[in-house]
Amino acid sequence: MAETFDIAVVGATGLQGEALVELLEEREFPIGDLHLLASGDNIGKTLPFRGRNLRVRDVAGFDFSTIRLAFFSVAADVSLEQAPRALAAGCSVIDLSGAFAAGQATLAQVAVNPPAGDLSVPTLFAVPCAPAAELAEVLAALRAHVSFERLVVTACLSASALGREGVQELARQTSELLNARPVEPRLLDRQFAFNMLGQVGEADGEGHVSIERRLVCEVGQLFPELAGRVSASCVLAPVFFGDTLSVTLRSTAPVALDAVRSALDAASGIELVEDDYPTVIGDALGQDVVYVGRVRNGIDDPCELNLWIVSDNVRKGAALNAVGLAESLIKH
Amino acid sequence: MAETFDIAVVGATGLQGEALVELLEEREFPIGDLHLLASGDNIGKTLPFRGRNLRVRDVAGFDFSTIRLAFFSVAADVSLEQAPRALAAGCSVIDLSGAFAAGQATLAQVAVNPPAGDLSVPTLFAVPCAPAAELAEVLAALRAHVSFERLVVTACLSASALGREGVQELARQTSELLNARPVEPRLLDRQFAFNMLGQVGEADGEGHVSIERRLVCEVGQLFPELAGRVSASCVLAPVFFGDTLSVTLRSTAPVALDAVRSALDAASGIELVEDDYPTVIGDALGQDVVYVGRVRNGIDDPCELNLWIVSDNVRKGAALNAVGLAESLIKH
Repeated sequence: MAETFDIAVVGATGLQGEALVELLEEREFPIGDLHLLASGDNIGKTLPFRGRNLRVRDVAGFDFSTIRLAFFSVAADVSLEQAPRALAAGCSVIDLSGAFAAGQATLAQVAVNPPAGDLSVPTLFAVPCAPAAELAEVLAALRAHVSFERLVVTACLSASALGREGVQELARQTSELLNARPVEPRLLDRQFAFNMLGQVGEADGEGHVSIERRLVCEVGQLFPELAGRVSASCVLAPVFFGDTLSVTLRSTAPVALDAVRSALDAASGIELVEDDYPTVIGDALGQDVVYVGRVRNGIDDPCELNLWIVSDNVRKGAALNAVGLAESLIKH
Repeated sequence: MAETFDIAVVGATGLQGEALVELLEEREFPIGDLHLLASGDNIGKTLPFRGRNLRVRDVAGFDFSTIRLAFFSVAADVSLEQAPRALAAGCSVIDLSGAFAAGQATLAQVAVNPPAGDLSVPTLFAVPCAPAAELAEVLAALRAHVSFERLVVTACLSASALGREGVQELARQTSELLNARPVEPRLLDRQFAFNMLGQVGEADGEGHVSIERRLVCEVGQLFPELAGRVSASCVLAPVFFGDTLSVTLRSTAPVALDAVRSALDAASGIELVEDDYPTVIGDALGQDVVYVGRVRNGIDDPCELNLWIVSDNVRKGAALNAVGLAESLIKH
């Protein structure tokens, strides 16, 4: 009988947590016992797994020494508190929260840098934030064909980047507007429906927000040739799901579009869209690939490469990377 | 008694046309007779002006020799057909359609290059497309403080960039979705509600669309130091009104943010937003200024300047520039 692994999903009731549980079942990850964990109001909820309803328990009281691996899809402060406890108990961690800096966790994305290790030594792994992961998947395919000099990305994130509450906020505000009722922002401090929000969260003293710093830092870690050469603007679009990235890459030499298209076409995690452009609704939602379209040089500049990248941020951008990393770890 | 001018607004029933008529009245432009013109189904409609309802007449039969100036806010093919006829009849033209290339029309924006001429010689003027005009207003304020090296802009346009039909399409699709009815795209070929569309119109053989070429060309004309150094991606966000531009400027030297903020603060056509970020709903809609926020350097790069520019594309981005140009022409 094949080996199985007892694992936990911390933050199981969130959008990413649910997607993690779904993917673990769909991909037949060799699980012995699956523990669903959370904190606060989410304790006591149930989630379906392999035909049964599993009850969500309190992460605070959980004995991590009983399992080999835990996914953490929670707020950064919960990860900071609970992940070290899991590691100390001998349990490896795959953190999705972005709580741990470069020196503290091993940043890994299977499409870029599959980890050499396994689960024999308790290790703290981190996966990139969704827009960084989506970008990294594309950059990994292009690396052999484009000599990266500089990258500018505007990432239009969706309500789901704010979690389930973000999705509910957009739905409620939109409904209020269409029913000619006054909009009452609750989660956000202003109208989100039919409004582009140019900032995601609080800005620091230099004007950047944490998701932008995380994106720039993670892309620089995965692609050292781009360290210090990435510009990121993260904004919120009034859509429910999906990331859309407008990317301008500069190369030190003219970029051959044929080679770029062939490389994107050959990459297993990427769907190249030619003679059209991909969108979340109709293409990316629920899919396990990143969609790339609008492959073009600059208008006056053969050394520039422009791309439009579309992805299901919850499933492909976050959960699938974490599960793929776990699959890679148990192969060894 | 002060001199008055007989003028025409061609395309008076469109969103920009209506805004032109409103602004001409609000700003007390010295009009003698105002002729509202259009083609097709719009002939025969009426628009209010100075307390009267003016009937819209057919542009095809209009005698342009009776007037001094005509605004053209119509499809490019109508401008190409009718504007030369107006000029030949001795009437100056301010074209908003983008139909005329650099050599054919005098591209003018008052904030950047106020025209030296007047209405004594029939002249074909063009104003930039809304995102180029908004960008140009900001660049004009920064020119003395930032040595432009390269510019990357992702312009998130709104339904109104497709005219009144675009606004109606988004409203109808959103309503269908919220009422759990199937979405039936009519104007567009796919779902627009709650979906970011990465391309505005048909792409040419090199993958660019006309609004991107127009933006890059117009910014390069107004700022020759940026000719061949602008990268533009225009996408459609599911919002009704307003442009939002995510801009990354590279400078040949470190950019001093204090000087940038002072310059933006001092510019009459710009509202600088500090310690927050501007949005269309709540800030820019119906306003006569471009809003600028999120003024910041690059995360690792003092030679980079990032900006978030928000504007009412119909009123400020298009109509006000055209009326401002006309005001400048009659001053002489």
